[in-house]
Amino acid sequence: MRLLLFVYLFCFQVAADQSMLVKKQHFTLPAYTTVNGQTIAPVNVGWEAYGQLNKDKSNAILITHYFTGNSHAAGVYSEQDSQPGYWDAIIGPNKAIDTNKYFVISVDSLANISPFDPNVITTGPATVNPQTGKPYGLSFPVVQVEDFVAIQKQLLEALGIEKLHAVIGASMGAMQATAWAVNHPEMVNKLLHVIGSVGHDIFAQATLARWSAPIILDPAWQNGHYALDQQPKSGLVRALMNITQDALHYDYLQQQVLPKNNLVTESVISPMPIVSWLSARAEARSKYMDANSLLYLVRASQLFLANEQYTTALQANNIPTLFLPADNDLLLIPQRIEEAVKTLNKTTQHTNIKHLAGPYGHLNGVVAISQAASDIKQFLEN
Amino acid sequence: MRLLLFVYLFCFQVAADQSMLVKKQHFTLPAYTTVNGQTIAPVNVGWEAYGQLNKDKSNAILITHYFTGNSHAAGVYSEQDSQPGYWDAIIGPNKAIDTNKYFVISVDSLANISPFDPNVITTGPATVNPQTGKPYGLSFPVVQVEDFVAIQKQLLEALGIEKLHAVIGASMGAMQATAWAVNHPEMVNKLLHVIGSVGHDIFAQATLARWSAPIILDPAWQNGHYALDQQPKSGLVRALMNITQDALHYDYLQQQVLPKNNLVTESVISPMPIVSWLSARAEARSKYMDANSLLYLVRASQLFLANEQYTTALQANNIPTLFLPADNDLLLIPQRIEEAVKTLNKTTQHTNIKHLAGPYGHLNGVVAISQAASDIKQFLEN
Repeated sequence: MRLLLFVYLFCFQVAADQSMLVKKQHFTLPAYTTVNGQTIAPVNVGWEAYGQLNKDKSNAILITHYFTGNSHAAGVYSEQDSQPGYWDAIIGPNKAIDTNKYFVISVDSLANISPFDPNVITTGPATVNPQTGKPYGLSFPVVQVEDFVAIQKQLLEALGIEKLHAVIGASMGAMQATAWAVNHPEMVNKLLHVIGSVGHDIFAQATLARWSAPIILDPAWQNGHYALDQQPKSGLVRALMNITQDALHYDYLQQQVLPKNNLVTESVISPMPIVSWLSARAEARSKYMDANSLLYLVRASQLFLANEQYTTALQANNIPTLFLPADNDLLLIPQRIEEAVKTLNKTTQHTNIKHLAGPYGHLNGVVAISQAASDIKQFLEN
Repeated sequence: MRLLLFVYLFCFQVAADQSMLVKKQHFTLPAYTTVNGQTIAPVNVGWEAYGQLNKDKSNAILITHYFTGNSHAAGVYSEQDSQPGYWDAIIGPNKAIDTNKYFVISVDSLANISPFDPNVITTGPATVNPQTGKPYGLSFPVVQVEDFVAIQKQLLEALGIEKLHAVIGASMGAMQATAWAVNHPEMVNKLLHVIGSVGHDIFAQATLARWSAPIILDPAWQNGHYALDQQPKSGLVRALMNITQDALHYDYLQQQVLPKNNLVTESVISPMPIVSWLSARAEARSKYMDANSLLYLVRASQLFLANEQYTTALQANNIPTLFLPADNDLLLIPQRIEEAVKTLNKTTQHTNIKHLAGPYGHLNGVVAISQAASDIKQFLEN
């Protein structure tokens, strides 16, 4: 298969207390056939990189992203950009994932939830199908975490990278990192698995269905056939409210000081203050998002969560692994990771676990990741 | 105010291994004005009783019911009835709540979720408003847990009961029991609070909003103006799926053995097996239910959960109390009860807590209540 690779020069500048300047890069495959046997043509994927690839191409670290994220893991897009990538606290020069040493590459998953973000070019259900001239919508094939990995692998091969020093991901990113270690163990030296899953989690499958349900109920969804600029907004916002609540811990919500709403005793549909709090956040987050894309990411995650073979496969591959579950995670509960570690430790070596603390629940793995900086640094360097 | 009291003779028969035969009874108020100042006229309420009221009317125990329940707390309606009331394991002759000793009375809350159940006659949004000849729908006033209590109190007064040996409730029933102890401490000797709340739980308010949301999104809801026989079924079933998941523990779902559905890799909207499992249960449960009534019960519960004064009020009233939270409850988390008990124990006496075990999560307080039978017996008798 012929690869078209558009590699824009990436540049980074660093000053004290400043994030790297980074740029989204584009990778295009003329066609890709999913693990389920359906072809998407072409496939575009956005990616970013931080640090420099060494001569023997042995210093690459792959970062895979979470459900509502994209490949913007670190750095800023301009000096005016006040929102660095989500793991900027641990990726950069002299940081835990040290870009002075490593070539850190982060790649979008297919069907990115925010296709209207100017920094997202990745193919998904909101992409226009060149064969019909219309957005794919629900005609886009079901994609799986293994498809995300297969496309990332083609990008790495196009860059001449045959071995990864590590694969690192949070949440749905940890699912991808797991699939990397299971499907391509010869390419993965180390696995860093943050607030993730190793499959076989029935409760989380049901929880994810609660993210899709409001979209499917919203009449504006029109069985997936809405115009892209006429999103099923009510359903999408409710889906994001569910995601936000599931990703936080109850004590975090309990501590919020909220304005009163006296209408709540007048009407059963006036929102309680915490509901207004959640919907304001969801509304703001939904700006660049596509409802069908959310359904696709839910299904990809559910299929991963339904797979009962990952722990056995990890056991067979015996790759040095550090699990970082959040001790108060209500979405991907730490118990499932603890069970997997127990199983792995029966026969494998180099499997370690450390629990993340913090008030946020699941989100500790993103916004409170700096607490694990020295563990991550040590894991990557030893 | 003139009270109309229809007390049908209640009868019970008991044989070994048999539940009592019981009958739904009717109580009617010509009018009731809510704590929020709106009048409902008339108000009908269903109730049941088990055991006999003694001469000095000092042996009454009030049972208040949970969200999806009604006053059918024990016994069966006929010898062919295979489904006894929800707490039949602890209510009956020689049982923990011994009907040989106590007159156990159980009363519907307003706006019962199952108005089409032939054994539910209680007024709510599905009731025809005599002033318009149409169902109230959203014109029904917002009702609160304190309204449920006020109407129960009028029934007790009509029966000549001035003092309760105990008020006992599970979940939303424990909210009502709390409101009893707070608003009418002179009438309550003991408070038995099972898998409940003492208010001030922001996370649970948000969780309950997730029960209403699917109904409000369903176009068949029509802003509450649907015909009663044309329920917004999709929204109602999804609401009940959310209730079921929230009321169970993740390990309980994890242990389910589910049939495969190969379509899940073909379409993002084919339900995962656990989702089919939840929807089959919800579909069956929804038969007698009304969507608007669910919204009213959510709001009543949310207003209770938003109130931060109950613990202080309980402290002032110092009524002997036994809290029975479920240790793995994900809906009304035991931590909130533990915090309240810690506060109460600073100044009050006779406050005890015992955690319920079992695989079900929140539902342990209903389906696994027999584990607490001796604690309950002892609490009532000492």
